[in-house]
Amino acid sequence: LVSVLSSAIVVYRLPWTWKCSKLLMKFIHAGLNTIAMILAIVSIVAAFEYHNAQSIPNMYSLHSWIGLAVAIFYALQLFVGFAVFLLPFAPVPLRAALMPIHVYSGLTIFATVIATALMGITEKLIFSLQNPAYSASPPEATFVNCLGLLLVIFGAIILWMASRPHWKRPPEKNDEVLQPIGGTPEGTEAESTMTDGSNADKSDLRINSEADRKQNLKFDEAGQRSTM
Amino acid sequence: LVSVLSSAIVVYRLPWTWKCSKLLMKFIHAGLNTIAMILAIVSIVAAFEYHNAQSIPNMYSLHSWIGLAVAIFYALQLFVGFAVFLLPFAPVPLRAALMPIHVYSGLTIFATVIATALMGITEKLIFSLQNPAYSASPPEATFVNCLGLLLVIFGAIILWMASRPHWKRPPEKNDEVLQPIGGTPEGTEAESTMTDGSNADKSDLRINSEADRKQNLKFDEAGQRSTM
Repeated sequence: LVSVLSSAIVVYRLPWTWKCSKLLMKFIHAGLNTIAMILAIVSIVAAFEYHNAQSIPNMYSLHSWIGLAVAIFYALQLFVGFAVFLLPFAPVPLRAALMPIHVYSGLTIFATVIATALMGITEKLIFSLQNPAYSASPPEATFVNCLGLLLVIFGAIILWMASRPHWKRPPEKNDEVLQPIGGTPEGTEAESTMTDGSNADKSDLRINSEADRKQNLKFDEAGQRSTM
Repeated sequence: LVSVLSSAIVVYRLPWTWKCSKLLMKFIHAGLNTIAMILAIVSIVAAFEYHNAQSIPNMYSLHSWIGLAVAIFYALQLFVGFAVFLLPFAPVPLRAALMPIHVYSGLTIFATVIATALMGITEKLIFSLQNPAYSASPPEATFVNCLGLLLVIFGAIILWMASRPHWKRPPEKNDEVLQPIGGTPEGTEAESTMTDGSNADKSDLRINSEADRKQNLKFDEAGQRSTM
């Protein structure tokens, strides 16, 4: 689940995909997230059935509360993302307004999923290791602790990748940068993926004076600093 | 601890502080983080002493592993932040290069601290609630679960505040925007806090042609989209 979720997050961040069409990448992003959602539902159902089979009460732990809440938010995120960014009906200003919220929600959901997994690991180690107990540090405990630590490191790497502006997919040059002022509506959305000034430098917009150049540099800085 | 850490994070994000000097704000940021570090050390020592007094082994749980690791990273973050951003010796390019890493590390440490707290709460509820057990959902369990849920919501709000570009402290206008091209070194660092184009619009840099205006709009977009 976490690995599918991660690939869905970083799918726009792989430079070798930048020559693929934006729509194809959107489909991959949506498809991976749908797979992750299915895996999440399967695991939640499995947890309920395991609890019922073992006569353990359901939904009593903090792990289950946060896990169910984040699953609901994830379903909502998937639905809104599908309706607004994949279907062609949403107007561009709505897409532009929702994009920062979509990115923030996605990354917050991802971080919360990792936190939920860590709580689940903690519970499972306490309940399953009895003789010797978790506190006696048997090899299983050390091994699973290492897995939990790797999960945190992995999550931190994904968040780093997702928040570096120069790993962002560059804008669609054809329908955007080279267009006359009253560009197509699609342009604005492509624009929204742009961050690093180096892309703009490649465009054929003239940089007239020293003052303009300086202002551009400033916006470069802005793009880089505003990350996270 | 989490609340002091949060105030340290959002201290540059409060519009009513934007008239205070940058240096004062840095001192407040560093001071709050120092208080949080002291609280973290006190709680870690308390955990060890409690374990020793109760003859519980130390450092066996995932909570303790991740907690100690994040405390070490936090100490490192505090030391590097103090040496590079507070002391006046670091050259500007080094400050500019380290700032995105400093911001990323700070927010990742914050999220990991919350995850560690959630694991700690889970452990404590399992070990302390015996009759009735945690799984029987006594009022204490429900109450503490609610606190855990609030902790996640609180953390999400802080991350939202810290990642909105228009809540960033605007640049120091005096030593930056209005200066001639070969500005002071301090300028570059002030620049690094800038994100939103609305600040630049207030500056007296001329916007010459339609093309330039469009490019500026694009950088605005960039500043807003590049968040997180």
